[in-house]
Amino acid sequence: MSANHTKPRTSRADSVRPFYVMDLLARAKQLEADGRTVLHLEVGEPDFPTPQPVIEAGIRALRALRTHYTPALGLPELRRAIADYYRQQFDVDIEPGRIIVTPGASGALQLALAVLLDTGDRVMLTDPGYPCNRNMIRLLGADCIDVAVGPESRYQLQAAHIERYWDESTVAAMIATPSNPTGTMISAGELQALLDAVDAKGGCLIVDEIYQGLVYGRQDHTALALSEHAFVINSFSKFFGMTGWRLGWMVAPERYIDAADRVAQNLFLAAPTVSQHAALSAFEPETLDILRRRVDVFRQRRDYLLPALRALGFVIPVEPEGAFYIYADCSALTPDAFGWCRDLLEAEGVAVTPGIDFGENAAARHLRFAYTRPVEALESACAGIAKYIKKTL
Amino acid sequence: MSANHTKPRTSRADSVRPFYVMDLLARAKQLEADGRTVLHLEVGEPDFPTPQPVIEAGIRALRALRTHYTPALGLPELRRAIADYYRQQFDVDIEPGRIIVTPGASGALQLALAVLLDTGDRVMLTDPGYPCNRNMIRLLGADCIDVAVGPESRYQLQAAHIERYWDESTVAAMIATPSNPTGTMISAGELQALLDAVDAKGGCLIVDEIYQGLVYGRQDHTALALSEHAFVINSFSKFFGMTGWRLGWMVAPERYIDAADRVAQNLFLAAPTVSQHAALSAFEPETLDILRRRVDVFRQRRDYLLPALRALGFVIPVEPEGAFYIYADCSALTPDAFGWCRDLLEAEGVAVTPGIDFGENAAARHLRFAYTRPVEALESACAGIAKYIKKTL
Repeated sequence: MSANHTKPRTSRADSVRPFYVMDLLARAKQLEADGRTVLHLEVGEPDFPTPQPVIEAGIRALRALRTHYTPALGLPELRRAIADYYRQQFDVDIEPGRIIVTPGASGALQLALAVLLDTGDRVMLTDPGYPCNRNMIRLLGADCIDVAVGPESRYQLQAAHIERYWDESTVAAMIATPSNPTGTMISAGELQALLDAVDAKGGCLIVDEIYQGLVYGRQDHTALALSEHAFVINSFSKFFGMTGWRLGWMVAPERYIDAADRVAQNLFLAAPTVSQHAALSAFEPETLDILRRRVDVFRQRRDYLLPALRALGFVIPVEPEGAFYIYADCSALTPDAFGWCRDLLEAEGVAVTPGIDFGENAAARHLRFAYTRPVEALESACAGIAKYIKKTL
Repeated sequence: MSANHTKPRTSRADSVRPFYVMDLLARAKQLEADGRTVLHLEVGEPDFPTPQPVIEAGIRALRALRTHYTPALGLPELRRAIADYYRQQFDVDIEPGRIIVTPGASGALQLALAVLLDTGDRVMLTDPGYPCNRNMIRLLGADCIDVAVGPESRYQLQAAHIERYWDESTVAAMIATPSNPTGTMISAGELQALLDAVDAKGGCLIVDEIYQGLVYGRQDHTALALSEHAFVINSFSKFFGMTGWRLGWMVAPERYIDAADRVAQNLFLAAPTVSQHAALSAFEPETLDILRRRVDVFRQRRDYLLPALRALGFVIPVEPEGAFYIYADCSALTPDAFGWCRDLLEAEGVAVTPGIDFGENAAARHLRFAYTRPVEALESACAGIAKYIKKTL
C-alpha cells in the first residue's frame, strides 16, 4: 500500500472549513440522548412543515408517476408560474426564459458562479456573511474579497465598497437581502447605487433573495425591478417552507442562459421532478394565505426575541427586518463567543451559532440567534441565558 | 450601459460544449409538434416509471410531512440500507459511514472530484466516454487526459494506459462499468490490475457503477470487493428507475469522509428528503422483483437490436454486456455520423446520438443507440434506418 493512503492530498477541500456550530450540534445531540432538553436557536430551518396544498400536489405528482427527468432549466410551467409570481407580487415582468429552476438555491448559486467565474477571478462579499457562498467560490478555484461590514452600513455592501475594493481580478459582487446572519435589508436606493457601481466596473451583481417574503414591518422588493443585468438567486426553502425538497431558482441575464443550460446539464441534469410539480402549488392563494400567517408568527417571534436579547445585555445596533436571524454583539458578556456558546449549551442547554461561522470580522464578539422555534421556546432559552449570565458575570 | 453587457466574459463555461444531440432533440420536438412520429433511440433514460413500492413510500413520506433537511451525508437508515444491499448482492461489507447519499450520481461525482482535485490537476478517462465527466472536471479548474480506446480494450481503460499516460499532474483515473456509451464491462481481473496500477502511482481510481444491475448474461460485480481506496459512484436512477428523484450515492475511502461532509454541506446541504425516504423501499424484495423483470426486458431489447444493427451494416466489434447502449461503427454507411443522424431524423423520424457527444476519438464514425424503448419501437426504428440506408447508398 502506498503512502498516499494515509491522508488526503488536496488543498481545495481543506480550504472549506467545518462549521463550528456542527461541534455544538454534535454535543447537543449527545445531551439530548442523555435525556436533557436542548433549546435550538442555532437552526437556520423553519420549524413549520411544507404547507398542505404543496404536500398534496407532491402526492398527486407521484400518483401520476411523474418520475422522469424534466428539462435541465426546469418545467416550463413552473418557470411561467415563477414569472407570474413576480408580476403579481412585485409588478415586474420577467421573461420565463430567463428563469432557471435549480436543485436548491445552492444549485442556483453554483450555476451563477460557474458561468461567471474563471480560475483566479474574485468575488466581493460581506463579512459577516453566509459561509457557503465563500466556500463555493473557493471550490471553483476563484477567490473572495471579504469586506468587513458593520452597523454603519446595516451590515451590507455599499457602492463605496465597490469603489474602494474592486480590482482587475474582481468580476462580481454578491449581496443578500434580507441577509443571513444579520437579517438586515438593502433599500431600493442603495441597491440601485450598487448596481450602478458594479455596472461601471463592468462586473456583475449577484443578489441573494432567498429570504424574500420573510420581511417584517416594511416593504419587500426585488433587484429584478431595477436591473436586467443582475443574477438573482431565490429558493422554495425559506418563505415557501420547502427545505427538504431541494428546489430553488435563478433569474439570469438573457446572455447567460445558454451557458447556464449547458452547465446545468452537466452539473445536475435537472432539479427533482416531484419537487417541481409540487412547487406549482406554492403560488396558489390557499398556500400563500398559510405562508402569510407564518410570516406573522415569525414577526411575533422577532418582536419577542429582539427586546429580550437587548435586555440581557446583547447589543443589536441595527433592527433586523427580515429572514429569521438576530446578529448580536456579545462583547459586554464575553470576549470569546464560541467558548461562551459551548459553555451555555453545557450549562443551560441552549444552542446558538457563534460569529466565527460567518467570517473573521469581529467574529469573537458576535452570535447569531435564529427564531425558527415557537415563542415559548424562545422564552425558555432567554431564561436559560439569563441564568447563565448571572452565574458567569 | 457598459460594453460587457453584450456578451458573457467567462471561458470556463465556454469549455462546456453543448451536446450535439440537443440540436437533434429540438428538431425532433418540432417534427412531433408538426404531427410526425419520432422514434427515440437517443434517450439515456429508461421508459419505465419508478416501481410502485417506491412511489408508495414517497407518498407515505409526504403524508408524514418529511419535508425538512436530512444530514448532509444522508439519512442514516438509507446509508445502512445501501450497506445491507452490498452485503446481500455482492457479499461485501461496507461501513455505512463510508456511504454518502447525494443529489444524483452527478452530485456524487462532483463531490469526489472536489475532494480529490486541485486547480490544474488532471484526471485520466476514456474517449469515448460520458461527456459530463469531462465537463465537470473542467468546471472545477482541472483537466482531462483523454485516452483513445477501442475494441482492443473493450473501450475500457487498462493498466497499460495508466503506465503510459500518467504524469506528475495526474491524480486520478476514472472508469465506468458498464460504460456509457459502449455498454462494455471491466472484468474483475482487469479492474484489479487498474487498481494496482493507479495505487502504484499514488493516485485514486474513480469507478462509475451507475449502470450496476443492468447487466445481461454475465456476472455483475463491484470495485468495492477489491479495494477500500477507490471512489465508487452509484445511482438510484438507472437500475432502480428513479431518474427524476435525483438521488445517488458514493462510497469513499474512509479518510475522505470528513472533507466530503464539509464540501457536501456547502455544495448542496443534502439530497432531497422525500427521495431518500422513498429509496428505502428500493431494496425491498417486492421492488427488486419488479426491477429484475425489467432487466429481462432490457436484455430482450438488446438481443433484438444488436443483430438487427449488425444486419443493417453497423460494425459492433465488442458485445455490449450492460447499461442500455450499443455503440456502433457506421463508417460502412457514412463518413459523417452527425450529418447522417440529422438526415435520418428528417427522412425517417428516427433519433440516435452521434459519436461526437462522447469525445473526439473516431467520433465521426460512430453512433450510440439506446434501447430505452419497447422492442416494437426498436423494430420500427430499424425499418426506418433500413429504408434510409437503401435511399442513400
